[in-house]
Amino acid sequence: MTESDLPVVQLTPGRWGDPAHPLTLPPAALQALKHLGVRRPGATTAPADRSGLTEEVSGLLVELLGGEYVKTDLEMRWGHTRGYSTTDLLRHRAGDTSDMPAAVVFPGSHDEVQALLTSCSEHHLAVVPYAGGTSVVGGLAPKGTAFIAVDLRRLDRLVEVDEVSRTATIEAGVRGTAAEALLAERGYTLGHFPQSYEGASIGGYAATRSSGQSSAGYGRFDQMVVGLTMATPRGTIRLGRAPMSAAGPDLRQLVLGSEGTLGIITSVVLRIRPRPVERVFEGWRFGAFEEGLAAIRRLAQDGPLPTVLRLSDEVETAINLADPDVLGGGSGGVLAIVGFEGEHTEVRRTEVGVVLRGAGGEALGEGPGETWREGRYRAPYLRDPLLDEGALVETLETAGFWSTLPALKAKVTEALVAALSEQGTPPIVLCHVSHVYETGASLYFTVICAQTDEPISQWQQAKTAANAAIAAAGGTISHHHGVGTDHRSAYAEEVGPLAIEALQAVKRVLDPHNILNPGILIPPPTHQTP
Amino acid sequence: MTESDLPVVQLTPGRWGDPAHPLTLPPAALQALKHLGVRRPGATTAPADRSGLTEEVSGLLVELLGGEYVKTDLEMRWGHTRGYSTTDLLRHRAGDTSDMPAAVVFPGSHDEVQALLTSCSEHHLAVVPYAGGTSVVGGLAPKGTAFIAVDLRRLDRLVEVDEVSRTATIEAGVRGTAAEALLAERGYTLGHFPQSYEGASIGGYAATRSSGQSSAGYGRFDQMVVGLTMATPRGTIRLGRAPMSAAGPDLRQLVLGSEGTLGIITSVVLRIRPRPVERVFEGWRFGAFEEGLAAIRRLAQDGPLPTVLRLSDEVETAINLADPDVLGGGSGGVLAIVGFEGEHTEVRRTEVGVVLRGAGGEALGEGPGETWREGRYRAPYLRDPLLDEGALVETLETAGFWSTLPALKAKVTEALVAALSEQGTPPIVLCHVSHVYETGASLYFTVICAQTDEPISQWQQAKTAANAAIAAAGGTISHHHGVGTDHRSAYAEEVGPLAIEALQAVKRVLDPHNILNPGILIPPPTHQTP
Repeated sequence: MTESDLPVVQLTPGRWGDPAHPLTLPPAALQALKHLGVRRPGATTAPADRSGLTEEVSGLLVELLGGEYVKTDLEMRWGHTRGYSTTDLLRHRAGDTSDMPAAVVFPGSHDEVQALLTSCSEHHLAVVPYAGGTSVVGGLAPKGTAFIAVDLRRLDRLVEVDEVSRTATIEAGVRGTAAEALLAERGYTLGHFPQSYEGASIGGYAATRSSGQSSAGYGRFDQMVVGLTMATPRGTIRLGRAPMSAAGPDLRQLVLGSEGTLGIITSVVLRIRPRPVERVFEGWRFGAFEEGLAAIRRLAQDGPLPTVLRLSDEVETAINLADPDVLGGGSGGVLAIVGFEGEHTEVRRTEVGVVLRGAGGEALGEGPGETWREGRYRAPYLRDPLLDEGALVETLETAGFWSTLPALKAKVTEALVAALSEQGTPPIVLCHVSHVYETGASLYFTVICAQTDEPISQWQQAKTAANAAIAAAGGTISHHHGVGTDHRSAYAEEVGPLAIEALQAVKRVLDPHNILNPGILIPPPTHQTP
Repeated sequence: MTESDLPVVQLTPGRWGDPAHPLTLPPAALQALKHLGVRRPGATTAPADRSGLTEEVSGLLVELLGGEYVKTDLEMRWGHTRGYSTTDLLRHRAGDTSDMPAAVVFPGSHDEVQALLTSCSEHHLAVVPYAGGTSVVGGLAPKGTAFIAVDLRRLDRLVEVDEVSRTATIEAGVRGTAAEALLAERGYTLGHFPQSYEGASIGGYAATRSSGQSSAGYGRFDQMVVGLTMATPRGTIRLGRAPMSAAGPDLRQLVLGSEGTLGIITSVVLRIRPRPVERVFEGWRFGAFEEGLAAIRRLAQDGPLPTVLRLSDEVETAINLADPDVLGGGSGGVLAIVGFEGEHTEVRRTEVGVVLRGAGGEALGEGPGETWREGRYRAPYLRDPLLDEGALVETLETAGFWSTLPALKAKVTEALVAALSEQGTPPIVLCHVSHVYETGASLYFTVICAQTDEPISQWQQAKTAANAAIAAAGGTISHHHGVGTDHRSAYAEEVGPLAIEALQAVKRVLDPHNILNPGILIPPPTHQTP
């Protein structure tokens, strides 16, 4: 089964992934959890309905979109409440309706989105664009205001394929899986496979600067976007007449990563590539993380680059490998996954092999690679049964320049261990590199420990400590999860007060009544600029 | 001689390049000009001094920077008047001092630039950042206000090389040639070789989204920038903690291309690469431009990419080739230049050769490649003797997606021919592709005809027609020259009124008294936004 064969999964609120294929924990894992002091928490609480729309606003929405596309029932609204961070899941389990939308609407075209935003702006009604709903940074939960969720699933068309330019115009509500299936019919692929692939959408990828597991070969999502259309309360913006231009700042890059705060992206023009003929994934062993890091840096800087390039640290390698013998006699070390897609991958595999062997790597063959490939979207499924058992499990990520990475990794790990140990719940911290560039790479951390009685504030303390460590070590607050509300203050510190004022000014122009994802990404202004 | 051995050329106002090595026209060229109706114009006019600074402001600048770094003499000011478009050169020849700065100042550090901007903002004194002075789009000539030129040549340091991350921190006033020489001492290169290479600076490359002749291999300048520092009237902005990030919009891309209107970039962190061991340039012949276009598109989309990839059309091929036999028996056709840099270029040369031959190309060997390489920075030198003889010669460029390029080329050519023929001066129009991407490419036009008695308005009419043709055919108004004042209205039309309002809002935040390159790039607001 390839990526384009995967079905569009209808995510269920509060639990990740395809409900038909949940994961259960093996006995050994349950045993390991006991050692961390993990105990099963109480049962989950059902939500209670608490909010709605005025009849006037409700009538207005019905007039704009039609009655069948305006939903105010509890189930629909609860199903559009928050995203999939662990904190979101814990709040969901507690039946916390504080972030529930007052209604869910389903516009059917760009023009309907445009009309909706114009009207909501007039009525000062906040809107949260929603497609996959897979945010893990609080990107769907504006604070202090009633809002409606704008579900974009009806913007589901592959509008155009330009086979000469190798571009595809795709609407924002198309899920990643659906986009691949539509493109596969024409012989093309995007090559964008983030871990949220089963749930996330094209518009969400663009709005949050998503990055997929094949980024070494296909690039990040923001590098695939050559054009876009965005509805704003003041009208529509269309950008991208050429792949690259010297006509002023690249304003596409101001929209990408704006997380629904400047407008709702309704379609994007994306670079596409022919579907790969071959796909091969290999495992490589290195003696230590630093050795593996030097090896993958060598590939990132001097080439040749494989399509997938990942490196787990010692802890992640030990925990994630079902069969420790795979690493060769149980001698420890770290695992790298190296994937190749395209035509005639043989030549590139040989060249990459020479580099990795020269850097101390030991070839483990396709076994570990296939194991990784098969499980590549399954990791988030594991979180639900872990939470069921009373474990706290969450991920966070950052990126930096190569020279900063060793200290960045050490400082973040130290901060997480200290902050959670102080609360009596010493964690296990796993780390891997999943995205490489010539000048640097990303670091992705997974944290597992026992829940305290207040798991949300427990994690908040750990996260605050990790954010401070990232800033102190010079990393960026997010490589591909985005800012949302969770990273807002860290983001403001990262880019500085003048840059934030500039973003606030842009927002005031496009969204004068502050209806678009208020409180997400951009801190509210503390004073008016001159 | 390699790129890093080239000297820093002190450009002389009104004529391009190294005055020690001017170009003269061969008799055959002079004969050809006669056929176009070209006649020698009158002698050039010396400038007359007309403006200065008030004593108060002059005293203030001296206090900030020291007397030796504040120059108000005519020669210095005349030497910082405008850039190098043909219109600029014609105005210079006419002794037109209307765009002359009131003073030229030379800050010596980021802190001095910052203090200068703070102070100039307080005193509402306009500033134009100036380093290479090589703008060809009116980027150095604000209208309707007295201003000072801020010459950044003293910001001339290679601040740091991070050999692990392969980045270099370089100050804005370092010329391209000097940057290469400084990096060559450490074994590195930027690989950025625009035609303005002998004169342009690092800060100018960044502020205008420059693109060099080796862009297929090294990328555009904006793709090399991973970090930057910019002084603004309201303080300093520092961006870039990682190669790529999902922490909001990529604000580096808002600064790149801002052409001095949002602040003065004082240093950038750039990706660097090891100096290439080998350099080989080859010529290839195709039967027609469309055939060549399909061939280079094949390389841009499926690889492998050479370092340099250019394709001249039939007219440019015929005119630029000194020896028509090079194309094989004078049988017409078009010339492509394909360059390779790096280690073991042999393998890649072979692979590229297979693709080009399969697409109908005929290998012409290294002769035409070396001829191009030797003359690669000389074309602008040719303009001065052509103007001396009474010819009008100018270039313009655009970019678009591959499927739009044939019509884009045809429409722009038609527009130029019609607009100049109407004035009794039928032109020759040359075109080449010099920058390729997966989804599209650039088109670069050279126009030659006889001057009328009013050559500035003569060209203005042609340029207006070309700009309209670019917009109608869906191209961008500039691929690498920038916007300046010449493309300002076309740029506003390209991105639309909401995007322009957003940029105006950013400018109001960073430059509340509109002192930074006023009138360049961003049209003045017609009304206040809510």
